[in-house]
Amino acid sequence: MPLVQKRRNTRQIRVGDVVVGSDAPVSVQSMTNTQTRDVDATVRQIKTLEKAGCEIIRVAVPEMADAAAIRHIKDRITIPLIADIHFDFRLALAAAESGANGLRINPGNIGDRHKVKKVVDCAKSHGIPIRIGVNAGSLEKEVARRLGSTAEAMVESGMANIRILESLGFYDIKISLKASDVARTVAAYQLLSDRTDVPFHVGVTEAGGLYAGITKSAIGIGMLLARGLGDTIRVSLTRDPVEEVRTGYEILRALGLRNRGPEIISCPTCGRCRINLFKIAEDVEKALLERDTQIKVAIMGCVVNGPGEAKEADIGIAGADGSGILFKKGKVFKKVAQDQLVAQLLYEIDKMTKNSEEMNGSKE
Amino acid sequence: MPLVQKRRNTRQIRVGDVVVGSDAPVSVQSMTNTQTRDVDATVRQIKTLEKAGCEIIRVAVPEMADAAAIRHIKDRITIPLIADIHFDFRLALAAAESGANGLRINPGNIGDRHKVKKVVDCAKSHGIPIRIGVNAGSLEKEVARRLGSTAEAMVESGMANIRILESLGFYDIKISLKASDVARTVAAYQLLSDRTDVPFHVGVTEAGGLYAGITKSAIGIGMLLARGLGDTIRVSLTRDPVEEVRTGYEILRALGLRNRGPEIISCPTCGRCRINLFKIAEDVEKALLERDTQIKVAIMGCVVNGPGEAKEADIGIAGADGSGILFKKGKVFKKVAQDQLVAQLLYEIDKMTKNSEEMNGSKE
Repeated sequence: MPLVQKRRNTRQIRVGDVVVGSDAPVSVQSMTNTQTRDVDATVRQIKTLEKAGCEIIRVAVPEMADAAAIRHIKDRITIPLIADIHFDFRLALAAAESGANGLRINPGNIGDRHKVKKVVDCAKSHGIPIRIGVNAGSLEKEVARRLGSTAEAMVESGMANIRILESLGFYDIKISLKASDVARTVAAYQLLSDRTDVPFHVGVTEAGGLYAGITKSAIGIGMLLARGLGDTIRVSLTRDPVEEVRTGYEILRALGLRNRGPEIISCPTCGRCRINLFKIAEDVEKALLERDTQIKVAIMGCVVNGPGEAKEADIGIAGADGSGILFKKGKVFKKVAQDQLVAQLLYEIDKMTKNSEEMNGSKE
Repeated sequence: MPLVQKRRNTRQIRVGDVVVGSDAPVSVQSMTNTQTRDVDATVRQIKTLEKAGCEIIRVAVPEMADAAAIRHIKDRITIPLIADIHFDFRLALAAAESGANGLRINPGNIGDRHKVKKVVDCAKSHGIPIRIGVNAGSLEKEVARRLGSTAEAMVESGMANIRILESLGFYDIKISLKASDVARTVAAYQLLSDRTDVPFHVGVTEAGGLYAGITKSAIGIGMLLARGLGDTIRVSLTRDPVEEVRTGYEILRALGLRNRGPEIISCPTCGRCRINLFKIAEDVEKALLERDTQIKVAIMGCVVNGPGEAKEADIGIAGADGSGILFKKGKVFKKVAQDQLVAQLLYEIDKMTKNSEEMNGSKE
């Protein structure tokens, strides 16, 4: 049984130049937490997110000033932007006029069909998609009363929202069905996958802080992707959104779906370890954070087991008493003082990276 | 399809008073990174881990002094202790004599059958189990040459080690098959589950630091537990082992297998949020960290969506402009100044906890 099943067949949509659905790469997105109308702060955050690999960014549009700001934000960023709107259809129209590359709005919440049609016509004329964002905590009252806050209720709400848009001839849709727990989230997407070919924006909502948030997102999003369900992902953490993007890529890497930047494997240390490996691992991680090179680096606690256990790594270090060694593919090639370990490792990685870039360059 | 499939049927073993296998709760374990012979430091770390919920602790035994220290460590801790031994069978004998509740040693690495028999006889007479710890990076040379560092090779190594012990009449075994990537780890346990009823100690080895480590562990261990595979778990992080235990419980909670302590759900914040929610969430998390009460707490960014979306929480707070509200089961019951939010929330949680403890007390 392979770790990841065949990807679900979906219709494809485009958010700016990012294709979402079917065989398009699973994209990683996030959301700003600045006031959108504060253009400078919002652009600053998006730039940091772009650097971390964020491919689609969502901004909250609670008022007209936020919709108006989108135009100025768009001028200064390169990734597509989605406007997040609750209830007020005029904000959706304004955001689209302002250059948003997509809207997140639930047609069921807009009110009468006349208003929904205005949003749909506007999205059509701008060629932008709509994400239906079903949330277990904010289902339509009638659905919630009848079915509770269940996966079935989320699916019913999702299908009702899809029908509203499709009945108006609008098919440029993606959908999310998020709950704050893994069980309902996974069940909801699984159920919906039999009922529509709309691509899935996948995430666990209100997942929490560092440990709970990463764990719930990794299991929830991970299990869905392993079942072939999920076309774009958003990790929700009560943390800097850069950490959401980082976690998103770690999920994709863990499943072998996408690689971004260096992969670091490192041992948990034990009573055999004689160096401060936690500090070393953190220093290396920080130094490599923004590099895009795909290299496998091992940070191991002891010379005895380290190089052998990490022979699959392109390069690695292992600690001895007060000193350490560097190894490539499991073979030791240099002994260095402990305080030189990180510097020497980074130096060697730079050399390897440069070599491989030159080799790639000469091929062109 | 339920999130978690029926648990695999295994033989049961005991590590001290912790039952491992079949319908026994999936236990959470960790490993010290102190020098085991440094009794004070080791006991201090184990005490912290016990508080965090660690149920089995492993210590490295690279030398005789470490084996001898086990007796003094055991005097001062309450959870069972496993001695981790590489190669030298005499260390295993000494650790068992010193009171270890289990041994982690691979019989295939000990050498001749005579030595293995000594270890087995010693384990039998002390009534302690042996964990076979197969690691993709340190397979027997012959197996690795023939099959590579594959899941199949790990299974073959595992089965060979099981056969050695069982041929000596020893059945008190658990086994782990760890690789540094999710795919091989999951595949190896899955394959082995068809070939033996030995209980599984599950983990991804050398998983890495915070993001990679938690993500790989959550997906790898999570997918296995979801398939009903896994009787005791160890999260490996290049971090303080307390974080391994925390992550372990988050994995079990995410799958609905076990709950320990308060569950915090919190929103990622967005442009609608007018308070410093990251700080508030961290403060609440820290304050609740060592409480054992099973309560669901929500930390939400905005008054408009917060209480409704988090109506499943027992209690929660949501931020407004400079102030905030407290709610129970989605119903607002108090408005407070922002700088009072955390204190008021904790005060209310204390009241609720006390009430429920009194109620529980009166039942007895």
